[in-house]
Amino acid sequence: MDYAKLALDQHKKLKGKITIQPRDVVDSKEKLSIYYSPGVGAVSSYVAEHPEQTRDYTWTNNNVAVVSDGSAVLGLGNIGPHGALPVMEGKAMLFKSFANIDAVPIVLDVHTADEIVAAVKAIAPSFGGINLEDIAAPLCFEVEERLKAELSIPVMHDDQHGTAIVTLAGLINATKITGRDLASCKIVLVGAGAAGVAIAKLIHLYAGSDIVAVDSKGIVSADRNDLNPEKQKLLSFSKHNHTGSLADAVRDADVFIGVSQPGLLTPEMVKTMAKDPIIFAMANPVPEIMPDEAKAAGAAIIATGRSDFPNQVNNSLAFPGIFRGALDKGVTKITDEHKIAAAEAIAALVTDPSVDKIIPGPFDQGIVEAVSAAIK
Amino acid sequence: MDYAKLALDQHKKLKGKITIQPRDVVDSKEKLSIYYSPGVGAVSSYVAEHPEQTRDYTWTNNNVAVVSDGSAVLGLGNIGPHGALPVMEGKAMLFKSFANIDAVPIVLDVHTADEIVAAVKAIAPSFGGINLEDIAAPLCFEVEERLKAELSIPVMHDDQHGTAIVTLAGLINATKITGRDLASCKIVLVGAGAAGVAIAKLIHLYAGSDIVAVDSKGIVSADRNDLNPEKQKLLSFSKHNHTGSLADAVRDADVFIGVSQPGLLTPEMVKTMAKDPIIFAMANPVPEIMPDEAKAAGAAIIATGRSDFPNQVNNSLAFPGIFRGALDKGVTKITDEHKIAAAEAIAALVTDPSVDKIIPGPFDQGIVEAVSAAIK
Repeated sequence: MDYAKLALDQHKKLKGKITIQPRDVVDSKEKLSIYYSPGVGAVSSYVAEHPEQTRDYTWTNNNVAVVSDGSAVLGLGNIGPHGALPVMEGKAMLFKSFANIDAVPIVLDVHTADEIVAAVKAIAPSFGGINLEDIAAPLCFEVEERLKAELSIPVMHDDQHGTAIVTLAGLINATKITGRDLASCKIVLVGAGAAGVAIAKLIHLYAGSDIVAVDSKGIVSADRNDLNPEKQKLLSFSKHNHTGSLADAVRDADVFIGVSQPGLLTPEMVKTMAKDPIIFAMANPVPEIMPDEAKAAGAAIIATGRSDFPNQVNNSLAFPGIFRGALDKGVTKITDEHKIAAAEAIAALVTDPSVDKIIPGPFDQGIVEAVSAAIK
Repeated sequence: MDYAKLALDQHKKLKGKITIQPRDVVDSKEKLSIYYSPGVGAVSSYVAEHPEQTRDYTWTNNNVAVVSDGSAVLGLGNIGPHGALPVMEGKAMLFKSFANIDAVPIVLDVHTADEIVAAVKAIAPSFGGINLEDIAAPLCFEVEERLKAELSIPVMHDDQHGTAIVTLAGLINATKITGRDLASCKIVLVGAGAAGVAIAKLIHLYAGSDIVAVDSKGIVSADRNDLNPEKQKLLSFSKHNHTGSLADAVRDADVFIGVSQPGLLTPEMVKTMAKDPIIFAMANPVPEIMPDEAKAAGAAIIATGRSDFPNQVNNSLAFPGIFRGALDKGVTKITDEHKIAAAEAIAALVTDPSVDKIIPGPFDQGIVEAVSAAIK
């Protein structure tokens, strides 16, 4: 299926994937007086005096901003705010379709951490939550940390945490199927960007597994002097000081997790892994190894980011329910405990996990309900 | 009618006056692939390479941000961003109801010109236009001028120009009815804030009338040393260097225009004006003089900002059509010529002007069409 052409045609035809709908039609002087002047003055006065009740009188109880500076859009890299907008509008569609959340795409024409933080803080009173999206590492870590600390509404960088939550959910079931204890697994993680770092952190926190991180220069090792602070943090997730190449890293590994480049994992490397290895090859749109190749080389379970293979690791399993839960319950910080509870909830939705069904499909029933229940 | 209570109840019931609607339901893997990954990648690549075509592939061809820092909300003053949000949501309802425009309320938690300009510029690629709202004078002048100069999408501060356009429309018909030439009228303008300054500028540009501005300290005169740059500009709109009080200013005046305080114009003052004077008493919610008092004192025509009297001077006659026209025709600057053409179009909609019908009512037919046709 040529989705590129289909998508271009359909986007040009629709000229916008979302629209604003008033919740009542303003078609009389009375309604004008209630929803606008003079009636709205009483609402504004009240809310100004009780800002904590803003969500009871405005749409902030159900809206989030989907914010990107366009610096790491899909696999396309730094294409800027205009290029990012179609993706953010798409995300807004998913927010509404999956979780009935009113999401507003906000693409930013600024690109330093200070500027992004300033812009998001400036507009924050307009929203009930902030979904950061497609912001490049390592900038994304600082931006998210600062916004979480400085705002009193939930802030989540979905490329990090959405991916990490769904990956952990898949791993919980994959290790169950292959008879492993996640805590004693040797895990190789390739791609130390936004998603990779968050995946490593969450697995480490959940199970304390031995995680060997690999970036474009090889194993992230204490011997290297080119590591940014986030990569340095990754060192503490490994029980040994590994060195060497990807091929060295995967030898005897139980689990391969790729958020990196197409074709990076060869069948030969898979053959050197532990028996019945678990492979999450999530590079998009072309995975680190194709499922049939991985299986032929001995993989017990293979997951990808694609919808045309089983076990699609898809953020849309997590973010709608996370924000649904946070908005409904007035949760102002998405914590590590929330993320783990969400991963367990997603894993538990698969009643009878099998090699071809370790996680729910995006249109399975009950996902948003289960995930939002995990956000307390 | 107790609109305060009605509005509070209705706002609490609705919990938000607007919502986001996807323009197609995402309920299949195929649609997910077209509107989101992987299909949207082709759209993003294309738009990144042709940013000027963003509006053909996203909702920016039909959306505007309604932006306020909450520093001059209705008659409530500086109540901040939370207090401003119900008004901006109301405005978004009107944009949709009147002109089918998707308007997003953006309230800002920053309050200097530099910060407001930086925040709006940062988010500008998300929108097809910027409607500035309820920003206090004189800050609003600098903010609007800088954004107009620095952005390539239409920017309009509605408190200034919406009010000015509708006031001019009303004056065109009011002078016709009373057999006056607007150019030779002596006009007294009370209230030298955002709306007052813009009204004076537009009338001066249109007709070159003699305009005497009055603020809380009396006539804006060259003898004073407390005038900000905008008020200094007002001096050039008067043919003489008037001095004195409001009572001095209105003597022999043909037209009184008030955007100031309740009850400021007394019947005694009206009696000193020229024969058959025209009075626009637009303070909200209580005008500078009540219509019956003004008529009893000899006023030929009285307009207010209220919906419960004839001749309501209401911004909603102008802003929906202005932005409709600008979005449809890709107009990137709202010029003085546009504003004058819009005022003439609104005036012309009243086929048979009378003392009780100098401007259309907000729900009259054809307003948006006529105003948008004026934006070329």
